[in-house]
Amino acid sequence: MIDAARLHGLMAGFLAHGATPDGGMHRLALSPEDGAARDHLVGWMRAQGLRLSVDALGNMVGLLDWAGPDAPVVMSGSHLDSQPHAGRYDGAYGVLAACEALLAVREAAGASGIAPRCNLAIVNWTSEEGARFQPSLLGSSVFAGLLDADDALARVDGDGVSVATALAGIGYAGRQHCPRPDAYVELHVECGPELERAGARFGVVTRHWGAVKYRLAFLGRQAHTGPTPMAERQDALLAAAQLIVAIGALPAAAAGVLHSSVGRLEVSPNSPNVVPGEAVLFIELRSPQPEVLDWAERAMLAAAAKAAAAARVRQEVRFIDRRAVGVFDAGLIALATGEAAALGVATRKLDTIAAHDAICMIPLCPAVVLNVPSVGGICHHPSEFTKPEDLELGAEILARILWRLCRDGLPAA
Amino acid sequence: MIDAARLHGLMAGFLAHGATPDGGMHRLALSPEDGAARDHLVGWMRAQGLRLSVDALGNMVGLLDWAGPDAPVVMSGSHLDSQPHAGRYDGAYGVLAACEALLAVREAAGASGIAPRCNLAIVNWTSEEGARFQPSLLGSSVFAGLLDADDALARVDGDGVSVATALAGIGYAGRQHCPRPDAYVELHVECGPELERAGARFGVVTRHWGAVKYRLAFLGRQAHTGPTPMAERQDALLAAAQLIVAIGALPAAAAGVLHSSVGRLEVSPNSPNVVPGEAVLFIELRSPQPEVLDWAERAMLAAAAKAAAAARVRQEVRFIDRRAVGVFDAGLIALATGEAAALGVATRKLDTIAAHDAICMIPLCPAVVLNVPSVGGICHHPSEFTKPEDLELGAEILARILWRLCRDGLPAA
Repeated sequence: MIDAARLHGLMAGFLAHGATPDGGMHRLALSPEDGAARDHLVGWMRAQGLRLSVDALGNMVGLLDWAGPDAPVVMSGSHLDSQPHAGRYDGAYGVLAACEALLAVREAAGASGIAPRCNLAIVNWTSEEGARFQPSLLGSSVFAGLLDADDALARVDGDGVSVATALAGIGYAGRQHCPRPDAYVELHVECGPELERAGARFGVVTRHWGAVKYRLAFLGRQAHTGPTPMAERQDALLAAAQLIVAIGALPAAAAGVLHSSVGRLEVSPNSPNVVPGEAVLFIELRSPQPEVLDWAERAMLAAAAKAAAAARVRQEVRFIDRRAVGVFDAGLIALATGEAAALGVATRKLDTIAAHDAICMIPLCPAVVLNVPSVGGICHHPSEFTKPEDLELGAEILARILWRLCRDGLPAA
Repeated sequence: MIDAARLHGLMAGFLAHGATPDGGMHRLALSPEDGAARDHLVGWMRAQGLRLSVDALGNMVGLLDWAGPDAPVVMSGSHLDSQPHAGRYDGAYGVLAACEALLAVREAAGASGIAPRCNLAIVNWTSEEGARFQPSLLGSSVFAGLLDADDALARVDGDGVSVATALAGIGYAGRQHCPRPDAYVELHVECGPELERAGARFGVVTRHWGAVKYRLAFLGRQAHTGPTPMAERQDALLAAAQLIVAIGALPAAAAGVLHSSVGRLEVSPNSPNVVPGEAVLFIELRSPQPEVLDWAERAMLAAAAKAAAAARVRQEVRFIDRRAVGVFDAGLIALATGEAAALGVATRKLDTIAAHDAICMIPLCPAVVLNVPSVGGICHHPSEFTKPEDLELGAEILARILWRLCRDGLPAA
């Protein structure tokens, strides 16, 4: 169904907005690069006659309302923002493959003369990555009612710039309501090595892991690193280090069903000659088993208390974000599996440990995530790469799913 | 000899350049605030008829050459730069008390009719703190030939701005040679609690501790914090944390004669959802015993290798700065002790664990550091404070030392 050259051309065009010389992508949420990519998408949507909506969080939806105002909406897309100096396909592929799939579906409808029973929507969710602003899935969480809009707009980046200010800065503080989906299909490169290791080219995500994310601060006291007696130091970084070591050791006690990390650490004043007065850790614990997640959270908090006592510092929990374990829609999983099979492609069922905006859609409508392999399972690194033929395969299956839904309508709930 | 009101007035005037509302001082080396403080000092020196020299590193010397071109130079001063959000007296007191002492000596000479046998110089050394640029003692190290000027000028801050660029930015990339001292006396607030705990008001530093400072990088690999299998992660921050814990534990094995710290840690890309690909530690080890310092360095390196192996990352030593244990001039120590005794003040002999520019003068000429107590022994914190009467006492003893040297001349070497 799809036009492969048109897909690759569209993806190449978006590289202008933040591609790095090492093959990576640096397009932080609501940065000038993100703004330019959004402008590019607006231009494309307008050229294709889609009806654009931008909401208060800057979520962007382009609607092909060819089935009339009362027809259900089938939505596909992902996010255009990236991690710092990360990969080119993470997120962007899902948006741009949806664009190509929409064109392919429109062409198929025109050729067949079949009247579509669903409208099609393409979405670019704001700040999926959680790199510049936390939590991740910011735009889709607000859209789904899982996070308060005012709370989200007030979140600040490491320089103290709020989401509201950054949205206004690139002209994407919208005032519209975006259409709500009646079905949601998100295509994404796999953020892990499972497809490649299994020799598979296509996966459907059936379950997402739960996560607990803490922003935890240790508060000590600035002092001279030279003369200050060791026994009197209140070293916030020393406490942080003890906790990072403890968090790194947790997964060994729950092999395979617990991932942990401290990806960001803010040290203040961060001067070589000053005992650190403050250290803020961004902690993540992820598991498919709620009881393992509970255990890990308790163990982490016990280790934090121990580290604080040993370093004579105070601790302060500043944010907690929780995401429960969840499952995707069985009907869409079966549909995707069937369309892949029709192309002679076997479907591998996957867990996703990475979060995707589709998770926020689960309470709203049937939702699913489709994956194609990332070479070496690499993600959040400039060398992230997916083979052109796999990019084409994912877009083709997506187009076929959207076409089936447009042709046959949504199954009864 | 001194005019206390004039001293306090001068010190209050310099608070305009970087004082913070919490009582602290934020005047990083070669920042706009440092530039304003330098301009202020230039104005004061010119008003007092001193001859100003600024060298390539921005070191500033104001010379009172009243004893003729062949007379020896007695130099006093310290540094106007501060740590981030730190204390008001650290450094600035030594420069401004030298200014007041010079005026007092000139007045004493005028009143007595005695012809001075030494010229007097006031110095402001560039970038003593090592907060924005490393190593510390940057300007005085180059002046003393301990560090190459081109090397020093090429050092960059955390934003990649070089010393050369920053000097040019505030107009202090000088072209002159500053006068060399034949004796050097530096007054400084104590960077520790020993005077206060001993109930003493005045100290003379007889010895400085040795130091080994490493900038050590762990190089891992960026990856997604969610799906990346734990056993395949190459987490640079985890290695850094293990090393920080090990460094923090070293002093317990050498109680009282080893201080250790990691004051600065640079994490990259420092995003909550990315396994850190790089972590750079700024490590300090300090001891009065060379063999303890050697042992600590070996233990630190062994811990670094172990941490790198455990976290599957590489390590890279980027800078090493070493400072040997050293002693100050016995003649100047005796002179200071005598002048204090003449005022009825007992002198306590001190080690300095903090570095001072005077350390760089030891190879050049007789040098000494004088201390007055800092309340609570606080240093590198906004609450650093020295009582006005102690500030006056230090300046008075300094003035009497300078007057004695001007009146009697320098002792034969």
